[in-house]
Amino acid sequence: MKPAFDLSEYQRRLDLVRKSMSEQDLDALVIGDPANMNWLTGFDAWSFYVPQVMLVLHDHAPVWLGRQMDAGAVYLTTYLSEESVRPYSEDLVQRDDVHPMEAIGDEIRKFDLSGKRVGFESDTYFFSFKAVERLQSTLSEVHWQDADRLVNWCRLIKSDAEVEVMRVAAQIASNVQQVAREHIAPGVRQCDLVAKILEAGTSGINGSGGDLPALCPLVMAGEAAATAHPMWTDIPFEKNQTVALELGGAHKRYNAGLARTFQLGSGPQKVYDTANAVTEGLESVLETIRPGVTAGDVHTAWQKVLNRYGLVKESRIGYGIGVGYSPDWGEHTISLRANDLTVLEKNMTLHVMLGMWMDGWGIEFSETVAVTDSGVDCLTDFPRSVIDVL
Amino acid sequence: MKPAFDLSEYQRRLDLVRKSMSEQDLDALVIGDPANMNWLTGFDAWSFYVPQVMLVLHDHAPVWLGRQMDAGAVYLTTYLSEESVRPYSEDLVQRDDVHPMEAIGDEIRKFDLSGKRVGFESDTYFFSFKAVERLQSTLSEVHWQDADRLVNWCRLIKSDAEVEVMRVAAQIASNVQQVAREHIAPGVRQCDLVAKILEAGTSGINGSGGDLPALCPLVMAGEAAATAHPMWTDIPFEKNQTVALELGGAHKRYNAGLARTFQLGSGPQKVYDTANAVTEGLESVLETIRPGVTAGDVHTAWQKVLNRYGLVKESRIGYGIGVGYSPDWGEHTISLRANDLTVLEKNMTLHVMLGMWMDGWGIEFSETVAVTDSGVDCLTDFPRSVIDVL
Repeated sequence: MKPAFDLSEYQRRLDLVRKSMSEQDLDALVIGDPANMNWLTGFDAWSFYVPQVMLVLHDHAPVWLGRQMDAGAVYLTTYLSEESVRPYSEDLVQRDDVHPMEAIGDEIRKFDLSGKRVGFESDTYFFSFKAVERLQSTLSEVHWQDADRLVNWCRLIKSDAEVEVMRVAAQIASNVQQVAREHIAPGVRQCDLVAKILEAGTSGINGSGGDLPALCPLVMAGEAAATAHPMWTDIPFEKNQTVALELGGAHKRYNAGLARTFQLGSGPQKVYDTANAVTEGLESVLETIRPGVTAGDVHTAWQKVLNRYGLVKESRIGYGIGVGYSPDWGEHTISLRANDLTVLEKNMTLHVMLGMWMDGWGIEFSETVAVTDSGVDCLTDFPRSVIDVL
Repeated sequence: MKPAFDLSEYQRRLDLVRKSMSEQDLDALVIGDPANMNWLTGFDAWSFYVPQVMLVLHDHAPVWLGRQMDAGAVYLTTYLSEESVRPYSEDLVQRDDVHPMEAIGDEIRKFDLSGKRVGFESDTYFFSFKAVERLQSTLSEVHWQDADRLVNWCRLIKSDAEVEVMRVAAQIASNVQQVAREHIAPGVRQCDLVAKILEAGTSGINGSGGDLPALCPLVMAGEAAATAHPMWTDIPFEKNQTVALELGGAHKRYNAGLARTFQLGSGPQKVYDTANAVTEGLESVLETIRPGVTAGDVHTAWQKVLNRYGLVKESRIGYGIGVGYSPDWGEHTISLRANDLTVLEKNMTLHVMLGMWMDGWGIEFSETVAVTDSGVDCLTDFPRSVIDVL
């Protein structure tokens, strides 16, 4: 095994984070988000269900602090050396009387941060209220600063190498939709379709293996199509059902999303009419995306089409996408909605996600795209209309 | 769609939680853990990547507070009615200037909790430091009490209906190991094996569909076998490699774990010797488990065998298992280790997990079991020795 990228790529990322830390006058930063740890160093393990953090300093390589049995994964997946691997003892795991963050705090103390400004991620999965509280009370001699999403914003603009990995993830996602198309039919159980979806996504494409996408496959069939994130069941698809599938591909932990709507047998005209409006809106969105426009501008292009059709959608129509572990592949930075004034730049990667969850039915169309010099590169590739399954 | 269990089962669970709340003198409880929400009400959606909580009261049905587009999932998967569904607006999602927990706090205020004691889960995934802080500062008129794992402990002893669902999950896990056995071979890429594993687990068994196990499939092959939670790669398995697979099955969101060790071609004697010690220890553990003994007693039985072989294992040898979403199927209550004095009772379900992560190699054996009236029922079923793949 080796890290997913060259050392120079991780050095570029570390430089970005340190620059952002300097702008926020931070002497150190404690990262709790496993996606941020992976992006910064390559660290890759299913270890985030127990407390672990990464400490970023200006004059020392990033330091991993986690559970003893996961320390080996640092050597397998990063360029970090022994001085960056600081495990805590196994007997601290999931006890009521002690918390691993106390041991982590004691270890961080060795870096002489007394009186220094230390940032932390305040609103991320796997870095709980108690974890933050125990860390901060253990290290009460430092000045804690909320630095949530500092690393996330550094991830927003991808390197060319990252875009190429995203392209592979998108190819996997496109193939996964093709496999879904081949297997979906009335009488097929939802779980059997998802079985084929997961198989195809994990095997990958063209010699590149797949990871587990951070968002699980979402099957919106029948009444469940009225809500955005239902879990699949073992109920068979029905004749004349409208089914939206939000699926993904993942490679080297980078995710691409791709949603499409399938009509089994014959469907009501409203499905096709709404799909026409949504795909026209999608075309308009893709024509608008280019460096220099804002997220809000992109949303305006969508809203204009929607207004013409008299349709309403309250939720955002996309977000930054990239490295992610369960449960989310979104980067928690840019959102495509009216009041987001983030300016698009080359090599941002976005999941343009148009879901219409109506009263008892729903449709979805999405694409994963990269912003180019002058426009947009649609990384996913699948017919952009309701797929009729006869 | 309908809830996974009868209404009476959810009423039993709610009674347990309210009793525990009374013992802790709590007027209300805010749950952040999606596994706890599912166990308490059946609520099942991949919605936990945005802020959501459940409010438990003594004189009102549990109240779900989450994102607008996920509200429909409450009706699909629970017995809760409209008065229990309190969504917040889509435009609050993932913004820097506002937080959904402020809206959730305003909604909770309608239940007149001023001056009351309200518990909250402090150390759970998906209920971040900022989420808790914003909720507590919005509702500063209540007395907040750390009530972490209150619901988890209520889950520890299963109903007979739950044990039967666990049995299905364990049958799926057993079949998944059988499928792995049929496909693993030198030259097969790890990702292609995992593809077959995920396919089999999702299709389920005997007409019962599978869910995504909360722990992703773990492939410990070659150098990666020295660490506990590596991610699979697209590298082929090698001749004479020792491979440990920690796999699972899930049904109605209940998880069963099952780990086994495969020897491709011929392996070093130390693999078989260590496996003999571990399986002897496993037998001793299973002979010890029964109502009335403590978790520590079970660990002692294991340690005695290990001592005889001169082996050392620092980590716990098992934990409570049941409902779980990514990333963990453990219930975060009982741990099988020396200093855990929890007394075993009938219908506890445990994942007895014996992993030995050595210097550059490793082996694993595990079983998912239910405590019975007088002993143990091993729910998983697969040959308990190193599986030779010739």
